[in-house]
Amino acid sequence: MQQRNNNSNADHGRVIISSRNNPAVKAIRALSSRKQRDSAERFFVDGLHLVAAATQQQADIETCVVAPELLTSAFGRELARALAHSGAHMIEVTADVFQSLAAKEHAQGLGIVARQRWLDLASVRPKAGQCWVALDTVQYPGNLGTILRTCDAVGGAGVILLGNTTDPYDPAAVRASMGAIFSQRLVRASFAEFGAWCRRRGVTVVGTSPAAAQDYQAVAYQPPLVLLMGSEPRGLSREQQALCDVMVNIPMVGHSDSLNLAVATGIMLYEVFNQQRGGRAAK
Amino acid sequence: MQQRNNNSNADHGRVIISSRNNPAVKAIRALSSRKQRDSAERFFVDGLHLVAAATQQQADIETCVVAPELLTSAFGRELARALAHSGAHMIEVTADVFQSLAAKEHAQGLGIVARQRWLDLASVRPKAGQCWVALDTVQYPGNLGTILRTCDAVGGAGVILLGNTTDPYDPAAVRASMGAIFSQRLVRASFAEFGAWCRRRGVTVVGTSPAAAQDYQAVAYQPPLVLLMGSEPRGLSREQQALCDVMVNIPMVGHSDSLNLAVATGIMLYEVFNQQRGGRAAK
Repeated sequence: MQQRNNNSNADHGRVIISSRNNPAVKAIRALSSRKQRDSAERFFVDGLHLVAAATQQQADIETCVVAPELLTSAFGRELARALAHSGAHMIEVTADVFQSLAAKEHAQGLGIVARQRWLDLASVRPKAGQCWVALDTVQYPGNLGTILRTCDAVGGAGVILLGNTTDPYDPAAVRASMGAIFSQRLVRASFAEFGAWCRRRGVTVVGTSPAAAQDYQAVAYQPPLVLLMGSEPRGLSREQQALCDVMVNIPMVGHSDSLNLAVATGIMLYEVFNQQRGGRAAK
Repeated sequence: MQQRNNNSNADHGRVIISSRNNPAVKAIRALSSRKQRDSAERFFVDGLHLVAAATQQQADIETCVVAPELLTSAFGRELARALAHSGAHMIEVTADVFQSLAAKEHAQGLGIVARQRWLDLASVRPKAGQCWVALDTVQYPGNLGTILRTCDAVGGAGVILLGNTTDPYDPAAVRASMGAIFSQRLVRASFAEFGAWCRRRGVTVVGTSPAAAQDYQAVAYQPPLVLLMGSEPRGLSREQQALCDVMVNIPMVGHSDSLNLAVATGIMLYEVFNQQRGGRAAK
């Protein structure tokens, strides 16, 4: 099912895979399932912006998939060349095969398979000034990716995923992260492990609840800290709130008593960031 | 295709629709398409939380769809009774028919068809203290719904949709709004109409750009104002920036130069809100 392409521009025999059922193609496509991603500890991502972010952040790139018909920009071709020089395994495919792998309609013809990177919580030592985010049972990959993107924006340390959360390497989370998936540290832990780690490392745990007495802007945050955010429908459980050193509320005057998880996390992260950078003093 | 149900608890002959092809059911299902919503100027929404928000906000409810088999909670049954008393046209359907209309898997057996509410921009007179959001070419219904939710939280006046935006009455936008679709004012206008309106009404237009010189926290916002946010991939165009009285940047120290649209809007809305409520003084 492979075509030989005797294009003389290439100094090696180029093979362009034209079958969607090619075993290498099938193995990459299988990474769209979480089960496969978990067992392979790899993920596939396509698009020039994300692939460029992966190379800039020294992601552990194993395979690079190129569809020459689709990869028309000078920037994209240069990126593919750099990946070839870096030693990534190169696979060339037809536009049709690439579309069968790509997340979006307007595929740009460049994708990579990279290794997932997970830190062991026990090895994480929070440094002065660092702000971590811990998320419990986050459900929506878009929310998780957006939170990674905001963490990156404020120079956050990383995200600790507690319990049964969605996968940050889900294609929708990777896309929503806009490349932050490659820069943010990722940790998975049970709530019990997390609680023990917080106590051992002496980090301040900050939680939010509409019922908390303190306004989120009335607290002087002193990193290292962990911002513990609850799940989308329910917020923080009693047990989770009990772990928090500080509970704050984000004031709301409308009809609802909650914000979208990614928005609430963004507002909290920017408050900590603004206090650290002293931006308010500029007024 | 209709079943007579001689349940003697009802003091009228109840008809439970059991066919997905019933004309009334088909007309409601058609509202999942934007074209149909636009021409009918109506939308369908299901779920106890959203239906309760609609009744609290005095939405213009025409039809109420009940699946007695699914509507098991006392709260839900009470809500349905209140809707029947309010004069909404009641339709009873089987669980199967309801599932064919519902947005999510775990349908709760209560939905409504309501009229869309749009204000004419010419009739909108911004009041002292009001903060509006104007969105250009917003693409994702989830982002739009999330922005409505945050606007509601800070007591925002409403959202002005410019150009070719996604539909706030899209089921995904309605769900993400968590009910704010019923409380926030909605306006559609061209950019030219919007520009003329801003000048005529004397509202301050605030825009954001990573290239703007002023920090978003270094400006004293004086509502009435409009926060003009650009489209997801591109931000504000030159023409749009030229309309802004104030351009500010939201500082970022990571690898990306942009935030998710709903997060960026949330951070700006909370800055304006925090300045108005004087929360910072509490520190």
